[in-house]
Amino acid sequence: MSASPQAVVCLSGGLDSCVTLAATMARHESVAALHVTYGQLTQARERSAFDAICDHYDLGTRLVAAHPALVEIGASALVDRSIDVPDQEPGEGVPVTYVPFRNAQILSVATAWAEALGAVEVCLGAVEEDSSGYPDCRAEFFRAFQAAVDTGTRPDTRIRIVTPLLEMDKAAIVRLGLELGAPLHLTWSCYQDEERPCGVCESCRLRAGGFERAGSVDPLLVEPGDA
Amino acid sequence: MSASPQAVVCLSGGLDSCVTLAATMARHESVAALHVTYGQLTQARERSAFDAICDHYDLGTRLVAAHPALVEIGASALVDRSIDVPDQEPGEGVPVTYVPFRNAQILSVATAWAEALGAVEVCLGAVEEDSSGYPDCRAEFFRAFQAAVDTGTRPDTRIRIVTPLLEMDKAAIVRLGLELGAPLHLTWSCYQDEERPCGVCESCRLRAGGFERAGSVDPLLVEPGDA
Repeated sequence: MSASPQAVVCLSGGLDSCVTLAATMARHESVAALHVTYGQLTQARERSAFDAICDHYDLGTRLVAAHPALVEIGASALVDRSIDVPDQEPGEGVPVTYVPFRNAQILSVATAWAEALGAVEVCLGAVEEDSSGYPDCRAEFFRAFQAAVDTGTRPDTRIRIVTPLLEMDKAAIVRLGLELGAPLHLTWSCYQDEERPCGVCESCRLRAGGFERAGSVDPLLVEPGDA
Repeated sequence: MSASPQAVVCLSGGLDSCVTLAATMARHESVAALHVTYGQLTQARERSAFDAICDHYDLGTRLVAAHPALVEIGASALVDRSIDVPDQEPGEGVPVTYVPFRNAQILSVATAWAEALGAVEVCLGAVEEDSSGYPDCRAEFFRAFQAAVDTGTRPDTRIRIVTPLLEMDKAAIVRLGLELGAPLHLTWSCYQDEERPCGVCESCRLRAGGFERAGSVDPLLVEPGDA
């Protein structure tokens, strides 16, 4: 992987971003991985998932971008310990786990880095349907952000925002990950614990449903003695 | 200023952002000020200008957002000491002082904060003509970013991106600042020094030209004994 990266993949360390990385690596010779820490409750665990996935793929070009202001801004259960992460099925409206305009922060850093690297894609594992209610996970947001990238970077810069999972459901994502041999055992999706997946938060439930409907078993839930 | 802020003003501490703040305060009862540090060479000086301007206006709602990744990303004379800040008139093309997609980073943080505060405006002192060649200072970029804000925030969030100086030249900005009683003596514009304005960088030249054409004298260039 000595070539200059053609794509910057936003890699939180969760299931979706890991499958996005696997799909991007199937299309490009060299890929760079970006991890944004913004004071999310499971920040250390997500960071170690990022490191493990990058090591798995032997990625040489990595950037961990700290974005501490999102904690001060607050207004989300993911960064504010005074707001409970709910133990329930996603309902109507914008969930309390919505971090204000988070994907714009991530895409802005990724685009700046892609422009500096000369990469032509920024890839993000956003999912429109399953992440029901996050406004910055919708196709219309990504189309608008693409226009901001086209107009806000150098005239000779051509960066495409790529969201390969946008219209998939979680079962399709699990199947794609298995098909691509993505290291799903290294990913972390839980919103509220760093030791064992809590099993009840929205992210855990979506993940569990995905593995179940894909007819597979989440490797994170296999006890060491089960193998 | 006990009311909830209606506007978030991006305040670098330079002339343009100070005049933008003054113009915004003329329209709103309560304003919040955001300062983004991204490893720019004159970061400490800009920060002290931000503090002084906020103190001048007695602003209670302030946020200093660190964005250290832009230094690692590099690719600009403003953050990379290995690239010289040029001592010349702005020429054709994108200047070496262009920081990749910088205004998207700043606007993303400002929008997140505005959404959390319930503010209805994000105000930025971008100037299209004078900042010739910065792609993220053009009206078409701000229009595209507005669409990203509209689609990427909560359905009931209404935030307008406001760039009151966009079509002004530097002389008009100086005149507006003087008219509004903006504390121009507290601002800092130089790209390369933190003690005295260097007088030769692009930013210093634009500022000097503005004061000259406005028939005024830059208070930063008045020697203490001159008064």
